[in-house]
Amino acid sequence: MNAPLIPPPGIASCPIPNRVLMGPGPSDMHPRVVAALGHSAIGHLDPAFVAMMEEIKVLLRYAFQTENALTFAVSGPGSVGMETCFVNLVEPGDKVIVCRNGVFGGRMIENVQRFGGTAVVVEDTWGEPVDPRKVADALKANPDAKMVAFVHAETSTGAQSDAAALVKLAREAGCLSIVDTVTSLGGTPVLADAWGADAIYSGSQKCLSCVPGLAPVTFSERAVERVKARKQKVPSWFMDLGLVLEYWSAPGGKRTYHHTAPVNSLFALHESLVMLKEEGLEQAWARHRLHHEALKAGFDVLGLRFVVREDARLPQLNAVYIPEGVDDAAVRKQLLEKYNLEIGAGLGPLAGKVWRFGLMGHSARRENVDLCLGALADVLSGMGKAADKKTALAAASSVYATSTR
Amino acid sequence: MNAPLIPPPGIASCPIPNRVLMGPGPSDMHPRVVAALGHSAIGHLDPAFVAMMEEIKVLLRYAFQTENALTFAVSGPGSVGMETCFVNLVEPGDKVIVCRNGVFGGRMIENVQRFGGTAVVVEDTWGEPVDPRKVADALKANPDAKMVAFVHAETSTGAQSDAAALVKLAREAGCLSIVDTVTSLGGTPVLADAWGADAIYSGSQKCLSCVPGLAPVTFSERAVERVKARKQKVPSWFMDLGLVLEYWSAPGGKRTYHHTAPVNSLFALHESLVMLKEEGLEQAWARHRLHHEALKAGFDVLGLRFVVREDARLPQLNAVYIPEGVDDAAVRKQLLEKYNLEIGAGLGPLAGKVWRFGLMGHSARRENVDLCLGALADVLSGMGKAADKKTALAAASSVYATSTR
Repeated sequence: MNAPLIPPPGIASCPIPNRVLMGPGPSDMHPRVVAALGHSAIGHLDPAFVAMMEEIKVLLRYAFQTENALTFAVSGPGSVGMETCFVNLVEPGDKVIVCRNGVFGGRMIENVQRFGGTAVVVEDTWGEPVDPRKVADALKANPDAKMVAFVHAETSTGAQSDAAALVKLAREAGCLSIVDTVTSLGGTPVLADAWGADAIYSGSQKCLSCVPGLAPVTFSERAVERVKARKQKVPSWFMDLGLVLEYWSAPGGKRTYHHTAPVNSLFALHESLVMLKEEGLEQAWARHRLHHEALKAGFDVLGLRFVVREDARLPQLNAVYIPEGVDDAAVRKQLLEKYNLEIGAGLGPLAGKVWRFGLMGHSARRENVDLCLGALADVLSGMGKAADKKTALAAASSVYATSTR
Repeated sequence: MNAPLIPPPGIASCPIPNRVLMGPGPSDMHPRVVAALGHSAIGHLDPAFVAMMEEIKVLLRYAFQTENALTFAVSGPGSVGMETCFVNLVEPGDKVIVCRNGVFGGRMIENVQRFGGTAVVVEDTWGEPVDPRKVADALKANPDAKMVAFVHAETSTGAQSDAAALVKLAREAGCLSIVDTVTSLGGTPVLADAWGADAIYSGSQKCLSCVPGLAPVTFSERAVERVKARKQKVPSWFMDLGLVLEYWSAPGGKRTYHHTAPVNSLFALHESLVMLKEEGLEQAWARHRLHHEALKAGFDVLGLRFVVREDARLPQLNAVYIPEGVDDAAVRKQLLEKYNLEIGAGLGPLAGKVWRFGLMGHSARRENVDLCLGALADVLSGMGKAADKKTALAAASSVYATSTR
């Protein structure tokens, strides 16, 4: 303690730019959500906060369309939501059928293996939905499989898989299902109970338009039974559902301290879920669809081709091929620097080949579609590409004009 | 999809009360930190955000007093910071000496065991600091021990242990050290390099006065080497330092996407670290000490006895015995409801026996000390206990009057 201190660095408050977020998330937050976030903190055991946690559970059940008792928000990013599902449900030696048609299926495989399970991988091309026939075959070939895991809405490609069909196959084979709805929740139908899914995780920063850092999850009774029947302790203290349960849903409302909840982020989540409820799920899904149609009409004019076939396309995540001869990074840089517009780059085998345009939650609105089409047309024109801005904007406009909303 | 939707619940925006936070954390946030938090989100791969991440690393090195390259904020609560240390450093079969003198030492034992290690537990009474002689004995009795883990500042009791001495013992025995500084960082000296500690974790919501949900960590080169030399993959995808490294400190600044960082919380952390730097570490430590002395002077008048002996007492976490015949819960309820003042209850064997008064970060200021002494005296008087409010406030005042600050 007598040694001189290492001196402080010369860093001052950071100016943070204002961006329009049309990448793969985070998405724009509504001012109401920002206001809730910025409220001064209260204690995580404060009765007012505990009451809010109860409301968040109820609101999340609506978002997931479930009556599952164990429905709450994990205090961490979507990846922690994913890991919470796998670390609790997978035991050493368990065989899990994992569908991979993008980045996040690959991450599921990692999860299974790190917890001592064996992943039987069902591969589909990036940009394609998961093929239920392949899953049926894998289930037949692996009668000892215990789970089926798949991504409902692949953020890396914009492909949506048929969750109802995949969960049904799993159940018929006596398997539990783990479903990633990070990009779908609030944007396209997530119907936990109607599907019969067992463990679903999502993220706060996509179609819910909340801050990043929370992972809504829901578990069926069957999943809870499986966790309770584990032979070994869950190899994580933080994610052990048995412990988390005593905090989020203690019997009689008597909560056991587990960890300090990210109270401000949960203020924001509460508000974003209230807004989803006010709008109504079906209306929110229709809104995402409408703005996607408008963006697509403009993209058609600009000659941008979608990666995903029409019937599997996520309205909230529009992946299109980068036109030949166009410098990926230069376009994104110009959009960001000149227009404060963030769009997403391609990941993995699609890096440098596609752009990903998010229309998620509060980002799914007309001013964003118009800004995006105009800015993109300008930037492409500036690079000597044919890009008819006026016609692209008119095409989007006519979608809005014919909308009944 | 043809089934009727489960209808939305009748929940509206939540009114959030304004509290003064004098519990064991979260602490009050400075308005500058709240303002940073409430900025609209930007992308986690935005160059402006990446620049901010670099600054956060530099600022955290100052807070930890270290030159460790691997210094960053884990995207999760302090418990995830703890788990990040243990899941990376403990391999199956490893023997770890864990010191337990409160709740959090117990949690460390759970961590060691869940990752397949064996915990050799050194017990000290709750409220006592860790006894270095016991640790020396344990190291002698266990020459095959690989690590020593202890809590620098026990949030459950307010006891501070001699981290320099404990880390020295570990090093002399060829062990790595894991140190919990959740409640000390920014409040009392944390000197990572001077101690020679190998893995330190903390929390954002205590003396840094930021939102809960981030866990600053720092790892020595020796710790990094140990992780690289692991025989088995880290049994967590999210916390695997090898993967996190490529996101937070990629060589050449080329970041690999790992997870969506909680950007708003990191805005707030950046601002709180800038404020710590502006004040200066030594000044921040002195401020915590001053307000503790004032609070203590008032407590002496009110007849409140400290749990921890003077030389091991944390200024930022004041645990005192509840006077005989006083209803613990009723007092805390009145403080919260009448004065909007949150204080902490006892945990574990101290439940119902002690109160914990936090003076952490922005909560460590005179108006809080005065509010607390006045409110507590009023409540105790109202319950028929002798509590001389005027003299208690005067005692605190005289501490401020004689302060050279």
